[in-house]
Amino acid sequence: MSVRELLAEIADIGRDPVRGGYSRHLFDDADTALRAWFVARATGLGLRVESDGNANLWAWWDAGDPAVGAIATGSHLDSVPGGGAYDGPLGVVCALEAVRLLQAEGFRPARPVVVCVFAEEEGSRYNVPCLGSRLLVGAADPATLLDRLDADGVTLADAWRAAGRDPQEMGADAARLQHLAAFVELHVEQGRDLVDRGSALAVATAIIPHGRWRLAFDGEGNHAGTTPMTDRRDPVVALAGTVLAVREAASRGGPLARATVGRVRVTPGGSNVIASRAEAWVDIRAESDDAVAALRDGILVEATRVAEREGCTVTATEESFSTRAAFDPALRDRIAAVLGGVPAIPTGAGHDAGILSGHLPTAMIFVRNPTGVSHAPGESATDEDAEAGAVGLAAVLRELAGTQGEGAAG
Amino acid sequence: MSVRELLAEIADIGRDPVRGGYSRHLFDDADTALRAWFVARATGLGLRVESDGNANLWAWWDAGDPAVGAIATGSHLDSVPGGGAYDGPLGVVCALEAVRLLQAEGFRPARPVVVCVFAEEEGSRYNVPCLGSRLLVGAADPATLLDRLDADGVTLADAWRAAGRDPQEMGADAARLQHLAAFVELHVEQGRDLVDRGSALAVATAIIPHGRWRLAFDGEGNHAGTTPMTDRRDPVVALAGTVLAVREAASRGGPLARATVGRVRVTPGGSNVIASRAEAWVDIRAESDDAVAALRDGILVEATRVAEREGCTVTATEESFSTRAAFDPALRDRIAAVLGGVPAIPTGAGHDAGILSGHLPTAMIFVRNPTGVSHAPGESATDEDAEAGAVGLAAVLRELAGTQGEGAAG
Repeated sequence: MSVRELLAEIADIGRDPVRGGYSRHLFDDADTALRAWFVARATGLGLRVESDGNANLWAWWDAGDPAVGAIATGSHLDSVPGGGAYDGPLGVVCALEAVRLLQAEGFRPARPVVVCVFAEEEGSRYNVPCLGSRLLVGAADPATLLDRLDADGVTLADAWRAAGRDPQEMGADAARLQHLAAFVELHVEQGRDLVDRGSALAVATAIIPHGRWRLAFDGEGNHAGTTPMTDRRDPVVALAGTVLAVREAASRGGPLARATVGRVRVTPGGSNVIASRAEAWVDIRAESDDAVAALRDGILVEATRVAEREGCTVTATEESFSTRAAFDPALRDRIAAVLGGVPAIPTGAGHDAGILSGHLPTAMIFVRNPTGVSHAPGESATDEDAEAGAVGLAAVLRELAGTQGEGAAG
Repeated sequence: MSVRELLAEIADIGRDPVRGGYSRHLFDDADTALRAWFVARATGLGLRVESDGNANLWAWWDAGDPAVGAIATGSHLDSVPGGGAYDGPLGVVCALEAVRLLQAEGFRPARPVVVCVFAEEEGSRYNVPCLGSRLLVGAADPATLLDRLDADGVTLADAWRAAGRDPQEMGADAARLQHLAAFVELHVEQGRDLVDRGSALAVATAIIPHGRWRLAFDGEGNHAGTTPMTDRRDPVVALAGTVLAVREAASRGGPLARATVGRVRVTPGGSNVIASRAEAWVDIRAESDDAVAALRDGILVEATRVAEREGCTVTATEESFSTRAAFDPALRDRIAAVLGGVPAIPTGAGHDAGILSGHLPTAMIFVRNPTGVSHAPGESATDEDAEAGAVGLAAVLRELAGTQGEGAAG
């Protein structure tokens, strides 16, 4: 097999005929098929596959003393709606291929190696990004999430049960974390930095902080044909003014500041009806936690102003917040050296590695993306760069799992 | 029975637990239940019920010479998403109650009377308002509509077949129209004009023109966290600028000008994804056809400007247009006199009566709405005014169907 062949095996799972690209969300048919494919492929490599209570999959290459911490690698298989083929799957596929390469050369790890697949990394179904890893480390509380509804009104608890899982088993799993010495996530780059630098691979320095807020504008539903313009309290107008304010605030917020409205819901949503409610999900990222908070505050002030001008109210709800995640500098430098001195760059995208970075030595490897596009069908990586990722990851695992000593953890 | 009791019979059909009010759309469970209820109630009055090829229901009180034109009355039973209890059903219920009152007093019509229920008046499922009446008069062409998709991707042809109907039977039905001498539609008022005038009832002078356009903004889908603000081509931003332009243009457009964005679709719609496409449905109404065209043109110029500024493109598609519909002045005056000299007012709302008005003498009766709200759960009519509507409609039918002479048609 090769990375290209492994990706080809899943190329027809979860294609989105309306949006283009892929829609693969927690426990839907595509996600279920991808999980089964992963179990089959990992089992084929002789790995021992298990699921934890948080729907994350773990494929163990048992070796050395089981009491010695394992080297974990992997990523996720779910996607945003209409996402690309590489965000998530490339890290899982390269991990499987790296294990195959090491086995083929007769490498005998001195400690366990585990390939993991984290659940619902994109948060597309329940609006909690990195759901599986957050639950694992205790950064998400099942008690506050089990009643959360997806777009079809299905609670997380019911979705869990429909997938044959027990919601009681969700939650922090300290024993599992303690058994991990390091986590290395390989991921397609989500920008064009490596194109400009002329490098196929890079390591990550940090993930900039990231929050999601839902703004709900409430006005007065009425007839679009009979209600005079002067008598309206139209929440869609308030939402529109806020979208422009989001763009304006982020544009003034410095080079790493980003703020986006990519999801909107209008209720009732009839074309001949003035809406009674309009909701916008605002995604905010910036250099520091304080910079994110400042952007958020500025946006909320403006949203309140445009809502009041329209006779509407606005309610803001924080749906998630991820503080700045700095990766382990020693592990990062060690990996960069194994990869031949590749560059170290920050990223604005969230990852399970960011969630784990507060709990164990963690690193990321990026693979060049010629288009720079991500979270869209145009996302790409060349076959050569993808293979270089698998070969590089194999070298990293050989280095980290080749000894039982303390040095393995970076 | 009374109007109140009849409305109570259908009060639990099609309630919308998310939006509030009612969601009753072509051939959904609620619409199917309402059709069955209508057939049962009309049959109970001894009426002969049939469906035409366009899914409109006709309940005949056969009388007089069948070759003499019938007096038709009725309205529709479908709703906007999250609509009120009266828009449509009040006209159907008052028609049934008027027939009952006339039968109870021993009235023997000199010509047929028919109670009709038009299909998909709100256009909520296939975005063609007055679908049933447009098909009936030939103002909508089945050939151009049968492939149209609903929100779930079901074509109109498949929806038709799933309801046990033959799409081949759709289309203009001149013979049926020729058999109608007049149509009188009773409807809840969709404003507060009758509250201000202190009158329970009114007759309509005209329906102002009305069009719906879908504006599709295309940009570049990408990652919300990694794409710099300066590199974006975000169609949601273009849509937002256009929503503000729609409000601004209509506010400057004169007292009857209205323009509304009540429906929006963002693709792919992930909260951490810059959208690749954003669509807005723009509902425009104004005093004259020219005034609607001028509003539309001004909005399109502004939409093109904001789209270009954002590096996006915009495509406008006309989904429907209804020219100004003036009701028959002689019939209107005759009905106003029968009702005791009630006022005559225009309306900004579209109705099946407007579609039929180009083909036979047509009139409308409005019933006072204390809230003035319509297309929303707050829509209302008092029991007294609703009964006055039924009694008034009975008087109108007694007048119009009481003779076979030419005068019946106003």
